Amino acid sequence: MSSTRLLSFRRCLPLRRSSAAGWNHPESAGAQLQSPSGSSRGSRCTLVRTMSSANLTLDNLNPQIKVMEYAVRGPLVIRAGEIEKELEKGVKKPFNEVIKANIGDCHAMGQVPITFIRQVLALVSYPPLLDDPTFPEDVKERAKTILKGCRGSSVGSYTDSPGIEVIRKHAAQYIEKRDGGIPCDWQNVILSAGASDAIKNVLKLLICNVGGKKPGVMVPIPQYPLYSASLAEFNMHQIGYFLDESKGWGLDVSELQRSIDEARKVSNPRAIVIINPGNPTGQVLSRQNIEEIIKFAYKEKLFLFADEVYQDNVYAEGSQFYSFKKVLIEMGKPYSDMELASFMSCSKGYMGECGLRGGYAEVINMDPQVKAMYLKAISAMLCPTVLGQATLDTIVHPPQKGEPSYELFMKEKRGVLESLKLRAKMVAETFNSFEGFKCNPVQGAMYAFPQFTLPSKAVEEAKKQNKAPDVFYAFELLENTGICIVPGSGFGQQPGTYHFRTTILPQTDKLKVMLDKFKEFHTTFLKKYG
Amino acid sequence: MSSTRLLSFRRCLPLRRSSAAGWNHPESAGAQLQSPSGSSRGSRCTLVRTMSSANLTLDNLNPQIKVMEYAVRGPLVIRAGEIEKELEKGVKKPFNEVIKANIGDCHAMGQVPITFIRQVLALVSYPPLLDDPTFPEDVKERAKTILKGCRGSSVGSYTDSPGIEVIRKHAAQYIEKRDGGIPCDWQNVILSAGASDAIKNVLKLLICNVGGKKPGVMVPIPQYPLYSASLAEFNMHQIGYFLDESKGWGLDVSELQRSIDEARKVSNPRAIVIINPGNPTGQVLSRQNIEEIIKFAYKEKLFLFADEVYQDNVYAEGSQFYSFKKVLIEMGKPYSDMELASFMSCSKGYMGECGLRGGYAEVINMDPQVKAMYLKAISAMLCPTVLGQATLDTIVHPPQKGEPSYELFMKEKRGVLESLKLRAKMVAETFNSFEGFKCNPVQGAMYAFPQFTLPSKAVEEAKKQNKAPDVFYAFELLENTGICIVPGSGFGQQPGTYHFRTTILPQTDKLKVMLDKFKEFHTTFLKKYG
Repeated sequence: MSSTRLLSFRRCLPLRRSSAAGWNHPESAGAQLQSPSGSSRGSRCTLVRTMSSANLTLDNLNPQIKVMEYAVRGPLVIRAGEIEKELEKGVKKPFNEVIKANIGDCHAMGQVPITFIRQVLALVSYPPLLDDPTFPEDVKERAKTILKGCRGSSVGSYTDSPGIEVIRKHAAQYIEKRDGGIPCDWQNVILSAGASDAIKNVLKLLICNVGGKKPGVMVPIPQYPLYSASLAEFNMHQIGYFLDESKGWGLDVSELQRSIDEARKVSNPRAIVIINPGNPTGQVLSRQNIEEIIKFAYKEKLFLFADEVYQDNVYAEGSQFYSFKKVLIEMGKPYSDMELASFMSCSKGYMGECGLRGGYAEVINMDPQVKAMYLKAISAMLCPTVLGQATLDTIVHPPQKGEPSYELFMKEKRGVLESLKLRAKMVAETFNSFEGFKCNPVQGAMYAFPQFTLPSKAVEEAKKQNKAPDVFYAFELLENTGICIVPGSGFGQQPGTYHFRTTILPQTDKLKVMLDKFKEFHTTFLKKYG
Repeated sequence: MSSTRLLSFRRCLPLRRSSAAGWNHPESAGAQLQSPSGSSRGSRCTLVRTMSSANLTLDNLNPQIKVMEYAVRGPLVIRAGEIEKELEKGVKKPFNEVIKANIGDCHAMGQVPITFIRQVLALVSYPPLLDDPTFPEDVKERAKTILKGCRGSSVGSYTDSPGIEVIRKHAAQYIEKRDGGIPCDWQNVILSAGASDAIKNVLKLLICNVGGKKPGVMVPIPQYPLYSASLAEFNMHQIGYFLDESKGWGLDVSELQRSIDEARKVSNPRAIVIINPGNPTGQVLSRQNIEEIIKFAYKEKLFLFADEVYQDNVYAEGSQFYSFKKVLIEMGKPYSDMELASFMSCSKGYMGECGLRGGYAEVINMDPQVKAMYLKAISAMLCPTVLGQATLDTIVHPPQKGEPSYELFMKEKRGVLESLKLRAKMVAETFNSFEGFKCNPVQGAMYAFPQFTLPSKAVEEAKKQNKAPDVFYAFELLENTGICIVPGSGFGQQPGTYHFRTTILPQTDKLKVMLDKFKEFHTTFLKKYG
């Protein structure tokens, strides 16, 4: 009852609604909302006065929450949800369905779950199925091993906060194999509820003002907005370094140097985030580039955050995934002593199990006293979801040659990855055929991030509507085609350039239709504003 | 490799190890660790100088992480884990197993999962089982409804950040029924990864220094240490109000007033946490007591946090659970307009599904602009585990009379709750038979929190060992009997008094053995130090 009832006792001053940046969530029932965008940085919040009887208002809300943004689930996506509801109610639109190309949500876009993963989950959830002869023996063996690692043999009991020991050991073996035999200590593998959970838990260790300066964290531009959102929440300084679009979104050390030198004036740089393969940019870093970054980080005394959740998603000929850990260890001293956290997730790769929230951080060379504090800090949240941990186990300990599930598993895994490879190529090529578009090859990950030009009339119209030009374009696309993308400003881009991120995840037939509709829209848009 | 390799390049000054308060986690491989206990409050951290090549050290670690403590998983529990490993290796001890009475971990202590819950989980995890004739029809219907609420009909897709709509609607219906028909708007129900996740997400909204004063949150003493840990992490001021042990751990308004008046000098009190039924104290608040608290909170303009995760766990004759929402709404204006967040979990009750991480917050009367910010803030973490959400669905939408799973479900549910009721009685009565023990009745929840006296020689010995007396007692108990409890100082207690928390969760036979061993230990302890 409350939110509707409440509104009759509450009046807000009519504020200009910025539909681009405003978080006027439909569930907040018609509130007029201030823009929380970077430019306002909370400074305008004091303009908001409500007649509310509430004690917690925008005036005294956590200011870091106010400035935080997360574009992947931002206002465009909220509008997409509204449109879906309108379609359900029979509202006529120039399209029949919303295509959510805004988020790397594989199963939502029709990808079929891997049988082996789901069979193991069914068995650990409901162990009487261990007696069901229709389940393969290797599935049963995996389920029994996981259950043996659970207290009381139940996935319903708490695990140690860093996760179940046997799963951490499987993860360590997986990492060793991935890195060609470089040892991995299972005690450095900390399981988590998706990579996001792990990233925030390591990041928050660095919150410490020294000499009156905020801690700074180097983050690529464009970047995955979890980083900007978390840095905002933690009141840390975001040091943006631009990826070089003209060099396939590579990292240029002179740009790293420029950004850190500038940032030192106002912050105390402590860490660098590298996303490889890149999100939203799809590049796969060369080994040489990784070495340069490690040398730079060593020189500047930075903690390395290697966001490697797309390590299975490498498509381009000649591209290969090198983990930061492998490169760093192989470079030898002093680099091999550097602090590094590498993050992995069940949500991406060939499995795409976003909803199950499995992942880990491998943290090496952390000061043992700090590590003890890290383990203490995660203990108050008890443990990551055990079924998410079980999911991770199936990924780091997949069926082996000769086991009954092997053939099907490999067929399904290859099927997903080969299809993604085709789609990666198709998306980049198609965008490059659009007037004014320029798209780097999608070497890896699950996204294209094309640059596009806009006619000056469109830019003017965007200004009139109080929207960034790329946001305006994305809203037009959504309202006219049902295609939901994320404007480049949600990830960061060189001033004066316009981009957007789209996933390559719609299944091939649907992707073709989407790209055709997109092209038609773009042509019409250019005619209208050209 | 890294943590062992690492140690050879790292030397720490030998520091006195406080095994009670020190977080010398076995996984941090022998590091000498400073005490992060309240008394040091990080102030001694600058004493620590390592020869480490690490950039992140105790010197520049997040100071809030340093002061944070979480006793339920603290040093005693770490030692218990070590002892388990020693037993595995064949080390001789005066006991054969560790009894983990430190944590409300039902399945770990032998409670059997509810069939209905696990069957639904198996089906949503592996939908081909929907064709298996051995699963009841209502299980299939539930699974289909959940899958319909998932994008792409897969629990592997992301959901909306506040959870799947149909599950939120089921939760709202559950709340309405619980509260005798008082309406619940499903849009006020925000699903979460256990209650802890929800509590932290609401709590962090209140982080805002006003007039140079930290935000203060009133928390009972004794309290569940998630609150002290989160307040430490968020750098908020913990306002402790003492529960009245002599009145069955009830809340006394004059004590609330005393604590807030004192706290106003140094902080800006913004919220009050009430845990009902109580953890670790086991009391169930009377309706009259709840009304008094609500009036107090209204007068002092406090946001109400009702931690009601034990709402199904009420055992004592004459005790009844009243939700804060029900009482507040029935009190009428102005109280019915107050801001309230009520928290629920899948981890407790009759289900005890701790590892699955399901829960929700019902948040009423929140300013709509603040609510929009709250929803934005949780969006960066994408969504709570979908299988945790599915678990919650089974709890808020259980089998109904006439459905095929009903009889078994009710039998299993009653079985757990009736057994807990017997054990609650047995534990309190047994402790009251110990010399120097005094234990209030366990009216609800899953814990007893007896007070005990210690001979002065024992107190002296504890001081010699640099341990709080109750911590010393708990370590002695652990080393001599394998029983792991949590000392009262982990929850807070009146100065000069000693308590501990034990769960009532060991199955009845085991619980009897545990209590017998405990009594024998206590008698011997008194002889030794008496």
